[in-house]
Amino acid sequence: MLRRVLCTMLLMGALPSQAEASQGHISVVLLGATGDLAKKYLWQGLFQLYIDQVSSGHSFTFHGAALTDLEPGQKLMFDVLKRLACPPDESPNRCAVLKDQFLKLSQYHQLKTAENYTALNREIEMLLHQEGLKEAGRIFYFSVPPFAYTEIARHINSSCRPPPGAWLRVVLEKPFGHDLESAQQMAAELMSFFREEEMYRVDHYLGKQAVAHILPFRDQNRQFLDPIWNRHHVERVEIVLKETVDAKGRTSFYEQYGVIRDVLQNHLTEALMFLTMELPGNLSKAEEVLQCKLQALQSLRGLEKQSVVLGQYQAYASHVKEELQKGQDYVSRTPTFAGVLIHSDSLRWEGVPFLLTSGKALDERVGYVRVLFKNRAYCTQSEALRDAGHSQCKPKQIVFYIGHGVLDTPAVLVSRNLFKPIMPKSSWKEVVGQPNLHVFGQLLSDYYMYSPVKERDAYSVLISNIYHGRKDFFITTENLLASWAFWTPLLNSISHQAPRLYPGGVENQNFLDFEMVSGELAFTEPEPVELLSLGGPMPSDYKTIQSKFRQSPLVSAWSEVLISQLASDIEKAASRAVARSGQFHLALSGGSSPVALFQRLARHHYDFPWRHTHLWLVDERCVPLTDPESNFFSLHNHLLQNIRVPYFNVHPMPVHMHQRLCVEEDGGAELYAKEIMALVANASFDLVLLGVGTDGHTASLFPHSENGLEGAQAVVLTESPVKPHQRMSLSLPLINKAQQVFVLVMGKGKHDITTLISRVGREPRKWPISGVNPSSGQLVWYMDYEALLG
Amino acid sequence: MLRRVLCTMLLMGALPSQAEASQGHISVVLLGATGDLAKKYLWQGLFQLYIDQVSSGHSFTFHGAALTDLEPGQKLMFDVLKRLACPPDESPNRCAVLKDQFLKLSQYHQLKTAENYTALNREIEMLLHQEGLKEAGRIFYFSVPPFAYTEIARHINSSCRPPPGAWLRVVLEKPFGHDLESAQQMAAELMSFFREEEMYRVDHYLGKQAVAHILPFRDQNRQFLDPIWNRHHVERVEIVLKETVDAKGRTSFYEQYGVIRDVLQNHLTEALMFLTMELPGNLSKAEEVLQCKLQALQSLRGLEKQSVVLGQYQAYASHVKEELQKGQDYVSRTPTFAGVLIHSDSLRWEGVPFLLTSGKALDERVGYVRVLFKNRAYCTQSEALRDAGHSQCKPKQIVFYIGHGVLDTPAVLVSRNLFKPIMPKSSWKEVVGQPNLHVFGQLLSDYYMYSPVKERDAYSVLISNIYHGRKDFFITTENLLASWAFWTPLLNSISHQAPRLYPGGVENQNFLDFEMVSGELAFTEPEPVELLSLGGPMPSDYKTIQSKFRQSPLVSAWSEVLISQLASDIEKAASRAVARSGQFHLALSGGSSPVALFQRLARHHYDFPWRHTHLWLVDERCVPLTDPESNFFSLHNHLLQNIRVPYFNVHPMPVHMHQRLCVEEDGGAELYAKEIMALVANASFDLVLLGVGTDGHTASLFPHSENGLEGAQAVVLTESPVKPHQRMSLSLPLINKAQQVFVLVMGKGKHDITTLISRVGREPRKWPISGVNPSSGQLVWYMDYEALLG
Repeated sequence: MLRRVLCTMLLMGALPSQAEASQGHISVVLLGATGDLAKKYLWQGLFQLYIDQVSSGHSFTFHGAALTDLEPGQKLMFDVLKRLACPPDESPNRCAVLKDQFLKLSQYHQLKTAENYTALNREIEMLLHQEGLKEAGRIFYFSVPPFAYTEIARHINSSCRPPPGAWLRVVLEKPFGHDLESAQQMAAELMSFFREEEMYRVDHYLGKQAVAHILPFRDQNRQFLDPIWNRHHVERVEIVLKETVDAKGRTSFYEQYGVIRDVLQNHLTEALMFLTMELPGNLSKAEEVLQCKLQALQSLRGLEKQSVVLGQYQAYASHVKEELQKGQDYVSRTPTFAGVLIHSDSLRWEGVPFLLTSGKALDERVGYVRVLFKNRAYCTQSEALRDAGHSQCKPKQIVFYIGHGVLDTPAVLVSRNLFKPIMPKSSWKEVVGQPNLHVFGQLLSDYYMYSPVKERDAYSVLISNIYHGRKDFFITTENLLASWAFWTPLLNSISHQAPRLYPGGVENQNFLDFEMVSGELAFTEPEPVELLSLGGPMPSDYKTIQSKFRQSPLVSAWSEVLISQLASDIEKAASRAVARSGQFHLALSGGSSPVALFQRLARHHYDFPWRHTHLWLVDERCVPLTDPESNFFSLHNHLLQNIRVPYFNVHPMPVHMHQRLCVEEDGGAELYAKEIMALVANASFDLVLLGVGTDGHTASLFPHSENGLEGAQAVVLTESPVKPHQRMSLSLPLINKAQQVFVLVMGKGKHDITTLISRVGREPRKWPISGVNPSSGQLVWYMDYEALLG
Repeated sequence: MLRRVLCTMLLMGALPSQAEASQGHISVVLLGATGDLAKKYLWQGLFQLYIDQVSSGHSFTFHGAALTDLEPGQKLMFDVLKRLACPPDESPNRCAVLKDQFLKLSQYHQLKTAENYTALNREIEMLLHQEGLKEAGRIFYFSVPPFAYTEIARHINSSCRPPPGAWLRVVLEKPFGHDLESAQQMAAELMSFFREEEMYRVDHYLGKQAVAHILPFRDQNRQFLDPIWNRHHVERVEIVLKETVDAKGRTSFYEQYGVIRDVLQNHLTEALMFLTMELPGNLSKAEEVLQCKLQALQSLRGLEKQSVVLGQYQAYASHVKEELQKGQDYVSRTPTFAGVLIHSDSLRWEGVPFLLTSGKALDERVGYVRVLFKNRAYCTQSEALRDAGHSQCKPKQIVFYIGHGVLDTPAVLVSRNLFKPIMPKSSWKEVVGQPNLHVFGQLLSDYYMYSPVKERDAYSVLISNIYHGRKDFFITTENLLASWAFWTPLLNSISHQAPRLYPGGVENQNFLDFEMVSGELAFTEPEPVELLSLGGPMPSDYKTIQSKFRQSPLVSAWSEVLISQLASDIEKAASRAVARSGQFHLALSGGSSPVALFQRLARHHYDFPWRHTHLWLVDERCVPLTDPESNFFSLHNHLLQNIRVPYFNVHPMPVHMHQRLCVEEDGGAELYAKEIMALVANASFDLVLLGVGTDGHTASLFPHSENGLEGAQAVVLTESPVKPHQRMSLSLPLINKAQQVFVLVMGKGKHDITTLISRVGREPRKWPISGVNPSSGQLVWYMDYEALLG
């Protein structure tokens, strides 16, 4: 059959000349050839590829494959192929001929057993041999569920690899895992069959014309964007995909995934990368583009539960119950709506809020990437006189409009008071829409608007990119895993969180509006009581408990509330001390519990008098300060680098002197003690923050320690039972001179020691923490419910 | 006469009972009683005071005074008094009676000679004696030009002080000086006659109802404002006073002052303080309020020439020439329009732009203080459906509307999506204006709007405050001098700057619009050539000159351009080094020249890879690091505290060890050398920045130094011929190992040494700078035209 086709093509004159024919032959194998995606997009994309590349010098064959037996499969597939549409810009005659050829170049195969694959391989080889064609490469398009990947990959690797000199490209469709672990596992399996450069993971968003044009736009408009594409000029970025459809009929998939895995982890994250990545000098170097993208992904700040708002349309529960045969008491916490606030720690984007939003059952279908610039102009003329022109006081924005919505076309919009962008005339044309239409708070006439000369389906674009080997349009393993590494902690932390229920459609009104408050996201409207149906009492329903522990005040709450209480108590102490003496001397402990405190202080306490605060260490491990094990390093990472304490006010312990660690003769402990005496009045810290170990140690004062539990020494070297053994620590007598001592105890693991020390007297040699007893200051215990109640 | 009046009052029943009468008598002396201000506002204000306080228990007499002889003066004054208006809320009958009384209680005095003052004093004493009244106090209102202040003050002090137990209040009208020096001088003179608590310096803006309500508003709405009145929520603040009038008829004053001295230094700065100051716990404590205000003023960041845009209406030049009889070649640089960008370094306001604007010959008369909040909401619903309600996505602002403009009334506006403010019902009433009016980008119906129950003239308010001794409504000496200290450096730096000419009125169009660009202000529109008529070539007209100096590349330009070139060259070097090795080791010199560089780097180079930069000192003075003389201290203030360098990457020289300075045995120099060896590959800095002294020294290597000019030592202790004598310095051999050495030379004072070293060979013992000669690195000279050309 092929021979006949090639002849036909030669007759048409649309075929490669002898020289061009040397480009070789490409076999495209579409696995899942009769599935939904194939029917809807892939065959059409392959036909488009054929139309575009018929004169490229490559020859093609197309192999549909599925589990179905040959005859019914063949029938199914050719029913699809016969319905392939001609592109509107193609002459009907040429298209008819090309479609006929395409059908003749296409074959159905049952691919089920190892033998089937071997047979396919043999057929391809024979065909090539018969036609005297050199093989250029093979494309295997996996349009099958991920559980089938491994099996198919094994067969391809063992039986269907092209001969040396020809390439193999396997195209994979999401989902690429469910979280970091499953994605890693899947990636590892695939890596055992294919090399990285052979794998093309599809994110069809990268084929959306507006998304695909983000990088070229940034590149071609460098002269305008270079000065403004940064945190100094960008106010916020919105990456939005709103759907009107709900999950009905898809709940077996959706209930496992939810909106974040379905849309945010992949599509919206990719768009985010295109916006935030540094621009390589040359966009055509795929490897550089991918490196820059990966860097951008890695510089995203970790998400917290508070960075997200979640919703679920009200009817979802019944859809799930029906489709998955769940009982009446089944509660789904799968979000169908999410808003996420993302920050990048790169110098370029630090502080700029990136809002990613997607949801089902919303009021409209629309997708866009919107970059809103800060308004830095003051217009002296009164408003009434001003609005005539394209004033600098109007909003400035760039929108990559993915499609649907009021514009109903992919588009690039640039506010006229920003600049007139350079757009490639061959692919984007300037259009004048309805000038009175309001889009993103402005009249459409306030924008330069461009739409594609030829609207192309995302899959056509992607199939063309596969053909051209443009790996930068696909998701590399590194990229994929970095994205999962970013999203998985959030997914884990919200897995038990009840999403807000919303009615769906236009009924949602402003019920899903959300806002940024102190670096967190929250719905702007309170949740109406009648919609509340999920979940038990949440931590925030409890107030902090005030009571006594070992005769001293006890503050107890769930950990988050506890930390926020502690942080604000520290701020109060600081403000008091600064008002009184102009300074606040704060000694902080290492360990994991304070990390949350440091973050809270850094992100929520902008009124903290840092400029007048001296930071001291309660204890330190004998490692260099830049060692991740160092308490100071942790303090630096989680607090210092996010606030502004004068350099002079920071007092790390001198554990590293003369290029060696905690050597007695170097006198580090004495040096620190002298520094304290010189700066802290009466060597009495305003506040010392301590923790407690499961053995009852506090600071780095361990049970039966020879140093530091008593005596005149202010700072001592001690030995820890766990690594690193050598420590430096404030002594108990020095601690007890402080004005205030706060002891923070968190987690179930601390319940036993908490119970124990609640009963014992003052026995510092056995339990150093029991020796904490400020001589004239105040001691307060901060314990979370887990430590206190177990 | 007085007796008669008191009797009349007793008959009316409006008079104090016996008990109340013990409040005592107040004499008000208005100096300049027949001048413009007195005619227009002050007599009316005094009459209002009388109306308000007639039943307060105080009795009053009013003494108008001027230089004019008694009879004509008396006539002039009573002509004014007869025309006094009755307040609209006063019953006509009562007012007529009170006005009659007020006239009878008023007297004219010629106050010219010492005898006149003595006579006045005697009259007051006699009157009090005759009536058997206790004296409560005396108010002297100086409505006279400032040059007359000293003379009058001397007379009052020597002849007119009330007896012990009664107070003296002297009321002063601006201008209070022309710059810091003249203000200090004037203040010192006044202080020799009056105590601080006796002086009431008027800024009539503090009597504007909307301005006066800023603090009470903040106080009464703490619950709403506390969380949002800070840099996290406020986007920008605009303080605006636009006038339609020009300076015609007032140029003799205006040409000396200009818009900044006339309006910004006083009125707008005061409004700014009310907004930015911390709120004391109790507003009624004037002293606390004043302290907070002063603190706010002191935390303003110093202004640069680049923080301001200046304009002059086109006709101003001819007004000046006519009125001041100037020749045709006279060029006035007095600005009649200014926009100024102010930043506060307080934790609360850091980074928030405060835009102060005022001008004459603008398109409208209006004054307002506008606080615009950041838009932190994302509205999920589409715009079309959203705009019905009071969406969180609409602008959020609070406006203190001073008057005139489209509203034509003082008002307080609060966006409805912000909160419904608490307003004192006795003085402010909620009003519904024209709902479709657009104000500050929103419909008027989007605001809660309040206007005064009773509109009061600023002077009535102020005179009432003088009577009540509310010093917080007046400008204290400290406040005044702090304000001048803030504005004077800017005024000096722009004194030769040509303002942009503008046509005036509505013709201005968007010609005076300006915007913030990298922390600077600039007009958004380029200046049309036809309007340019002032000034010679400006520094920025020159390009940098590239040439050779001592066989090495020379970059030369006016100082500002030079600094910006140097800063960007350093950034380039940093980026290259980080790309190559992951680190950038930069050694910086002290002194004054680098300060501008540090500021430039901190404010304009957000892409600088600080996180990977190590900062070293080229040299240090042997003083504690926190001493303002310390090079490190300067580096900290101008650079470090504005950027984010990891703590570990900052390397001050250890000049202060064991509580003593640069003691040889402490081994500070060796320690620093070791630190360099440990961290800098081959001890070869990526970049060393040097300066040159007039004696040819560089780093702290002085001519004929025993240490550091040669030999193996990397870091040395040296002696400076000037204080502080002891220094620590990198040695010449170490400097010469660097990859790049940049030498920065600026100022006329350096011209001689520059000329000299351009001619000599390599003689480091005579001129250490001549020994800078990197063995394998590059040397570049950065010289401004003054250093190079003299």
